[in-house]
Amino acid sequence: MAYSPLLQKLIDALRYLPGVGPKSAQRMAFHLLERNREGALVLAAALHDAVQGIGHCERCRMFTDDKLCVICANAKRDASIVCVVETPVDVHAIENATGFHGQYFVLMGHLSPLDGIGPEELGLGQLQKRLDEGRVTELILATNPTVEGEATAHYLAEIAQRRGIRATRIAHGVPIGGELEFIDGGTLSHAFTGRQEVR
Amino acid sequence: MAYSPLLQKLIDALRYLPGVGPKSAQRMAFHLLERNREGALVLAAALHDAVQGIGHCERCRMFTDDKLCVICANAKRDASIVCVVETPVDVHAIENATGFHGQYFVLMGHLSPLDGIGPEELGLGQLQKRLDEGRVTELILATNPTVEGEATAHYLAEIAQRRGIRATRIAHGVPIGGELEFIDGGTLSHAFTGRQEVR
Repeated sequence: MAYSPLLQKLIDALRYLPGVGPKSAQRMAFHLLERNREGALVLAAALHDAVQGIGHCERCRMFTDDKLCVICANAKRDASIVCVVETPVDVHAIENATGFHGQYFVLMGHLSPLDGIGPEELGLGQLQKRLDEGRVTELILATNPTVEGEATAHYLAEIAQRRGIRATRIAHGVPIGGELEFIDGGTLSHAFTGRQEVR
Repeated sequence: MAYSPLLQKLIDALRYLPGVGPKSAQRMAFHLLERNREGALVLAAALHDAVQGIGHCERCRMFTDDKLCVICANAKRDASIVCVVETPVDVHAIENATGFHGQYFVLMGHLSPLDGIGPEELGLGQLQKRLDEGRVTELILATNPTVEGEATAHYLAEIAQRRGIRATRIAHGVPIGGELEFIDGGTLSHAFTGRQEVR
């Protein structure tokens, strides 16, 4: 049985959301139409406003409604330490879990030549300009521990070292609370190679 | 760390979708902003158009863009058999699974006096008018086998019988392919009481 054209359009459009398949999209559409038409209009407006109003921070490429994001605009943050991450979600994760008080640079991806994502797409020119300003003394590389993330970290480390700036990589190993038995081999082998003296 | 106002608004609005918690809403917002701004605009428009354009069928209360839904508008459907269901999703389920060629009446809920949902909210006046037209010979009660659904079915059966119209209830029992071992007690007891002669 075919849905009415507008309903079919709505169900199709809901599938643009990550993790939403045909069944969920149908359930969402019926839920909104039956029980929360007002909510649907609020969501429509929020989507529209977000796409129109949210851009990237001029300094760190984080999402922001203004020219600078809240972190770059905050004079109390330490401009001498810059943490490089792949996505905006990573910034939130670090802000919520650590006491990091420096600034960020968001790549919005990782080096992936096959997908046409090179240094330019990641805004590395912008990052180099920032490093050339001379205030940065440490570049923390917090890209993901994947093949692409590691390659990106290596590339960034070279950029920093060429300027005499210290490049550090966040530690990788067995997660706190994790049991050795259930850790994948790659992580365990990494944790062994990277073992440190107990002091 | 606080999100930018527009981003926070988008994340909050995404939670109007059923089954979307704070984490999923955040993931959806970032995904749309990073990778599919066009899709976000399409979704915004689809939501807006759906709320503005989708109403209820004058005859059966199904969702439709026009005055009559595709089923009520189809002259080939048998107007003498009407199947009563709780929600539009049920219509789709029946259409996809069975060869039912009659018409429907969608209650958009079930009797629930405590929530202020009585016969009027379910459009039963409309249904009675349709039964009074004299063409309907059988009313199939396909409300859910819940306490409220059963109560609603009883109420509807009386309405039909008062007019000399046959009221039937869809069969409930052990699902095809189900194993007795894993069936809940209520269903199993119902299947025993409702056992039929093997012919």
